[in-house]
Amino acid sequence: MTHSAYAAAGVDIDAGNEAVARMKAAVQATYTPEVLGGIGDFGGLFDAARLKAMREPVLVASTDGVGTKVKLAATFGRYESIGHDIVNHCINDILVQGARPLFFLDYIAASKLDPARIAAVVKGMAEACRAAGCVLLGGETAEMPGVYVEGAFDVAGTIVGVVEREAMLPRRDEIAPGDVLIGLASSGPHTNGYSLIRAVLVDRLASAQPDSPLVDALLAPHRSYLTPIEHARSAAPIKALAHITGGGFVENVPRVLPPGLRAEIDYTAWPMPPIFELIQTAGGIGDAEMRRVFNCGIGMVMIVHATHVEAIRAALDEPSWVVGEVVRG
Amino acid sequence: MTHSAYAAAGVDIDAGNEAVARMKAAVQATYTPEVLGGIGDFGGLFDAARLKAMREPVLVASTDGVGTKVKLAATFGRYESIGHDIVNHCINDILVQGARPLFFLDYIAASKLDPARIAAVVKGMAEACRAAGCVLLGGETAEMPGVYVEGAFDVAGTIVGVVEREAMLPRRDEIAPGDVLIGLASSGPHTNGYSLIRAVLVDRLASAQPDSPLVDALLAPHRSYLTPIEHARSAAPIKALAHITGGGFVENVPRVLPPGLRAEIDYTAWPMPPIFELIQTAGGIGDAEMRRVFNCGIGMVMIVHATHVEAIRAALDEPSWVVGEVVRG
Repeated sequence: MTHSAYAAAGVDIDAGNEAVARMKAAVQATYTPEVLGGIGDFGGLFDAARLKAMREPVLVASTDGVGTKVKLAATFGRYESIGHDIVNHCINDILVQGARPLFFLDYIAASKLDPARIAAVVKGMAEACRAAGCVLLGGETAEMPGVYVEGAFDVAGTIVGVVEREAMLPRRDEIAPGDVLIGLASSGPHTNGYSLIRAVLVDRLASAQPDSPLVDALLAPHRSYLTPIEHARSAAPIKALAHITGGGFVENVPRVLPPGLRAEIDYTAWPMPPIFELIQTAGGIGDAEMRRVFNCGIGMVMIVHATHVEAIRAALDEPSWVVGEVVRG
Repeated sequence: MTHSAYAAAGVDIDAGNEAVARMKAAVQATYTPEVLGGIGDFGGLFDAARLKAMREPVLVASTDGVGTKVKLAATFGRYESIGHDIVNHCINDILVQGARPLFFLDYIAASKLDPARIAAVVKGMAEACRAAGCVLLGGETAEMPGVYVEGAFDVAGTIVGVVEREAMLPRRDEIAPGDVLIGLASSGPHTNGYSLIRAVLVDRLASAQPDSPLVDALLAPHRSYLTPIEHARSAAPIKALAHITGGGFVENVPRVLPPGLRAEIDYTAWPMPPIFELIQTAGGIGDAEMRRVFNCGIGMVMIVHATHVEAIRAALDEPSWVVGEVVRG
């Protein structure tokens, strides 16, 4: 596939480097029979026969980055989790429109490329892709002295998925007062608020070890909600999903609501995880700002009819919380 | 569409800013009836009915950046051409596999985002998309202090196109000795070799004005070969296309040839444009290195049967050159 891009950037996928060999194996493990062509092609090829078999296929695409979490990863020399972050973030962004991922492409750039580090990031991406049945179809690496700060790198990704038109979310015209918001746990701050985190924890981070519980908690990869949402949808219809990213509940829930309705969130309904308490205390951050910057422990919200709440919660293999209700106004 | 991402990044698309208003209009001008959904969605939606109507649709995707040309653009405060660069580079990368573009998504990051500059880049992207009948479906902007050098920015893009399986290029099993290579002119260095260019022209650039002929030549946007290649294909079959990017003829032509064949290039067959002569002279760069780093005036190569050369060249609205031949070895 177009991971010739890695070769061109000095990451020779045929090199004897062990990290690179593991990356190559991980990328190839994402390939399905839908992947056509071979190494050296200019673009990645994906057989669209699956779409032909659908009634009214709609392609859903999203590009994203992971923000300054990359800075933290570089500081502590921990690269693999960033690969999971970018893929899972993208998966969740199209999941809220009802789509399943088809393929993913990445972009990695730095002032100077280090093959072992790039390989670690890409291996993480490939693992997250494979877990979601998503092909890592291509990518580009770029060495850009004078653009990136020395030692820093950036990662962006683009995902393309597909959904039947009739299964698209949100179903805004079905949302009504009395509908219930069910929250699923986040795995940490995901990829939001890291500039603030680095500012308020600057002293603690200066003395932290790369494998300390603090760094573990801050670099915990953004989780994918693909499987729990599939379980939920098999139990009862979901009217809308909100991915709680930058802007928190405050900005992300209203994006899926119809005019005239709003969500009343009960912020006491779930326990705020310790990492957020630490951030809040260290920074003297008010509740309102915490809720606007961080997911505060809930990374995905389902909006469902009140009569479906118990069936959906029972279908999940994990804890969930009733975090709010749709009301007028 | 997901240009809500620009709003989130401080580029409020409803703001009174004139540059932003022009950007918004340019993006909306790329929308076709295939674009579903509206501003505020998490992912961009593209109706795939066109694929349903195809026999064996194959999706072709590619991610790319524009390298350190962004550094030059930032230095001279010229942002719009970079938008054309990234889109046209991506269009050409999937064109060589026979694909036409469906949609494009962008990623723009900097240490600090300047709405007017971002708007100029996006407007350029939108114009290039529209010229190719490609939807600018989404994008993400990221403000990353500590990752990007102050004043610098980076741009990456992902394109998704489609091709009938039977029309995929290259047709390696049809390429034979005696086939002819036809070259189409580049519009400049496109997006390759800019670190070298900046190094060898450092003195000239230090005193250059933003609107000088030198800066014009260096920032000339990467051209799209979509239209000339369509004209060519309407006249006679093309066996393969090579996009002459980083690595020049030396690396890009062999990528499309079958084992046992190579291309013999006649580097005297076309005039090397003045900008490349200037770079070569200023840097004391040998011919071999010039040919490995730069396109040297030819940005796209067609491989065709010898009997089709005249028909194809006659079908083009622009100059072309017979630049070489396929031979054994």
